[in-house]
Amino acid sequence: MTYLAINLADKLALFNDTWAPRVVGELNDYQLKLVHLEGEFVWHSHADTDELFLVIAGCLTMEFRDSTTHLGAGELLVVPRGVEHRPVADGRCQVMIIEPRGVVNTGDGDSALRADNDVWV
Amino acid sequence: MTYLAINLADKLALFNDTWAPRVVGELNDYQLKLVHLEGEFVWHSHADTDELFLVIAGCLTMEFRDSTTHLGAGELLVVPRGVEHRPVADGRCQVMIIEPRGVVNTGDGDSALRADNDVWV
Repeated sequence: MTYLAINLADKLALFNDTWAPRVVGELNDYQLKLVHLEGEFVWHSHADTDELFLVIAGCLTMEFRDSTTHLGAGELLVVPRGVEHRPVADGRCQVMIIEPRGVVNTGDGDSALRADNDVWV
Repeated sequence: MTYLAINLADKLALFNDTWAPRVVGELNDYQLKLVHLEGEFVWHSHADTDELFLVIAGCLTMEFRDSTTHLGAGELLVVPRGVEHRPVADGRCQVMIIEPRGVVNTGDGDSALRADNDVWV
């Protein structure tokens, strides 16, 4: 059996819409998702899980209710479960998100930005 | 509360020994580990979990019993549970490994390369 390497940049080049994560692999019951970000997302939280953001390219600002974290390429942040956050990207930003299968991008928030889940690329 | 970004290159610069993973963060009950690789590791498998390898810098060859996967920077591979594998790095290679807390680097193998677990940097 051959196990294929996943090239993150190559996968990101296969789609271009923002705030619409694509699954590129699974690690036990976790999914590895790539997403293009631009502009402001909605405030939300995930009651049952932490959420990992790894910036592949561009700059990501993660807003919390009482602080802000800036991330560049090669930097990651784990947002703890239950903590309200809002991703913001001034320009285009490419991110890998890792979280359990089934997590919805808008968490507890009600938004038009809610994306279909489990879409692979 | 302030949530700090983890700069992978900065963390990797804090240590230099090979095959000795350092934990840089946790995602629920998973750990994010950075490691410097050089040379050949031992054949082993992990019966109970998949294991994610993301190459940060350098080149990694993952040997399987009947195939080989080559990875460069920005490429990842998920080794399925129970599958024998052997990481090999011709030169220096920096990798992020993600797996459940408590997983031992040598898996079911008996080797002097077995590293202490849960060492943070």
